[in-house]
Amino acid sequence: MSDDQRYGLARNITLAGPLVLDGGVQLGPIDIAYETYGTLRPDKSNAILICHALTGDQFVASTHPITGKTGWWTRMVGPGKPIDPERHFIICANVLGSCMGSSGPASTDQATRLPYAMRFPVITIRDMVRAQAMLVDHLRIPVLAAVIGGSMGGMQVLEWAATYPDRVRSALVIASAARHSAQNIAFHEVGRQAIMADPNWRNGDYYADGTVPSAGLAVARMAAHITYLSEIGLTEKFGRRLQARDAKSFGFDADFQVESYLRHQGISFVDRFDANSYLYITRAMDYFDLAEEHGGQLANAFKGSATRFCLISFDSDWLYPTPESRLIVHALNAAGAAASFVELSSPYGHDAFLLDVPEMYRVVDGFLRAGIA
Amino acid sequence: MSDDQRYGLARNITLAGPLVLDGGVQLGPIDIAYETYGTLRPDKSNAILICHALTGDQFVASTHPITGKTGWWTRMVGPGKPIDPERHFIICANVLGSCMGSSGPASTDQATRLPYAMRFPVITIRDMVRAQAMLVDHLRIPVLAAVIGGSMGGMQVLEWAATYPDRVRSALVIASAARHSAQNIAFHEVGRQAIMADPNWRNGDYYADGTVPSAGLAVARMAAHITYLSEIGLTEKFGRRLQARDAKSFGFDADFQVESYLRHQGISFVDRFDANSYLYITRAMDYFDLAEEHGGQLANAFKGSATRFCLISFDSDWLYPTPESRLIVHALNAAGAAASFVELSSPYGHDAFLLDVPEMYRVVDGFLRAGIA
Repeated sequence: MSDDQRYGLARNITLAGPLVLDGGVQLGPIDIAYETYGTLRPDKSNAILICHALTGDQFVASTHPITGKTGWWTRMVGPGKPIDPERHFIICANVLGSCMGSSGPASTDQATRLPYAMRFPVITIRDMVRAQAMLVDHLRIPVLAAVIGGSMGGMQVLEWAATYPDRVRSALVIASAARHSAQNIAFHEVGRQAIMADPNWRNGDYYADGTVPSAGLAVARMAAHITYLSEIGLTEKFGRRLQARDAKSFGFDADFQVESYLRHQGISFVDRFDANSYLYITRAMDYFDLAEEHGGQLANAFKGSATRFCLISFDSDWLYPTPESRLIVHALNAAGAAASFVELSSPYGHDAFLLDVPEMYRVVDGFLRAGIA
Repeated sequence: MSDDQRYGLARNITLAGPLVLDGGVQLGPIDIAYETYGTLRPDKSNAILICHALTGDQFVASTHPITGKTGWWTRMVGPGKPIDPERHFIICANVLGSCMGSSGPASTDQATRLPYAMRFPVITIRDMVRAQAMLVDHLRIPVLAAVIGGSMGGMQVLEWAATYPDRVRSALVIASAARHSAQNIAFHEVGRQAIMADPNWRNGDYYADGTVPSAGLAVARMAAHITYLSEIGLTEKFGRRLQARDAKSFGFDADFQVESYLRHQGISFVDRFDANSYLYITRAMDYFDLAEEHGGQLANAFKGSATRFCLISFDSDWLYPTPESRLIVHALNAAGAAASFVELSSPYGHDAFLLDVPEMYRVVDGFLRAGIA
């Protein structure tokens, strides 16, 4: 470990900015909460940036301060794992708009001394990446050996490669897409409407009294959670089995295990996540369309890129199904970029990127070892 | 037309019952709202019962009294259509538990003179079918030439054939299943939680002051509506096109057409449907497992059946996908029942059974003509 206060767990930095957002607003100063693991080589050649998903956070391989759970990607990050603090200098930052310490709707607006709430500017995936680039500048890392992420994390990886091609040697995009489909937008809109329908939401101004729109946020999470799992996975895990009873109750209790599980997912989520952040980050994902940012041609986003790309999809992922990854691969091919792609078989649906899929860890390990001396 | 008051549009009948429900409760008297079209032959050989889906109603081919829209299956039912009032005597009844005139949670409990609300007994698909059989008795029709329905309507058809095999000559099951999967239950549970999270729901006792849980019901409908459409259908219909604007608003308006469409679906639904009925009917669907009712063997439900079966599924239907229909066909084969099955190609997803799929109407027409002299 270094004595440099910029490195280590539970870091917070305020960067002056301002950051000019895609929406035209100038945002600053900007707080970024992040963690680093491992030691940066003197030649700075071993830095890996991990980008988290919608409800993820910077605690990729350390204990979550609210839930007390271990990091969300300890299968990927740790000693002897594909991303290894013994070999790599690992950075993971809470995305702009989130609620674990980086600037977001729950942050205090310096101009008013009140929480931004819905006065926080609408942000994009590119804005999240720009904020990460400010952090990487602060860490004085000119080039990242790799940027990696699943789901919304993969969108950030694509945006990193498109926006800062000279700063990304390897890009790993897992279970992701270069744009949000109509169905993706539809599911997010249901979640947003569930939050906004909660009378405790109060147009986002709920921070003062601590009465948060927990019922709406729980429903949003439940709806989203279904999309993270496959039908076959749900059938294998729960089927039509009853929850702690021998017969149907002929009532509205959680008779079925799958109901009980979903309710638990909803209720536990509200303890660790801010409803307004959920609105902002889903909006950023819905707005994401990398081709649109490049004249309607996805290949233009990668033209002349020297970045090595690796894409992984899962056959049971119906949220960002394999054809979405193939579209990206075709664009990379058209742009003449180096791209490898594998579709892995898994029963876990979209969530597979977080779960025990040994092939994924082998693919990531091999790809990283080939790129980082 | 007959002078018999039992026949015609907008009929209501109160039957004494009591009906012994699957939950063990005796329910009675029972109101059934229904319509008939066409003329019953003297030998009563041309009666067709149409079973509606979750949010459907008896107005299969006549104007809906609230929305003013034409019937929900006018492509199927009408002069020159597969089900033709010139040839058939057509019955369609609002299901038990619904809100268009048949007994349901909004009905008055004769014991208390108050709306049942959540004191209405939990019902099953079989209970719905038993109530329909009471109506068919009332109409003095011993045997139905055909029972037909899509989605939850198809579940009722299966239940009719299993419970009253001697009263169903032909059974047409479209876009349906013999049981609700874990994913089906999960989506319904999200809808129920959305309704119950609405403070206006008040444990179901919202009838007195007319302030209904419209926000929760709208969210429930939005979530369900996504499952009725295919991803490809949503992409073709809406893609990422913006709604009445040239650029993203960088706000939380319905920027995308798909958002605007979904919001409209949610808002317009609450004008015509009762939130408590939504709870009860989704519960009945989740409870549905025809094999479970027959010792765990679906084939047992059809053993010795003389009914002719026709099953239709759609390749883009991910709510009740083709394998669910195949399971039924295998059970029918195992039971030695006469079964034909076709998977049709359509981009419309589950909703295809209500839409312009000419092959479906040809299949239904051919199947009915072969069975009704």
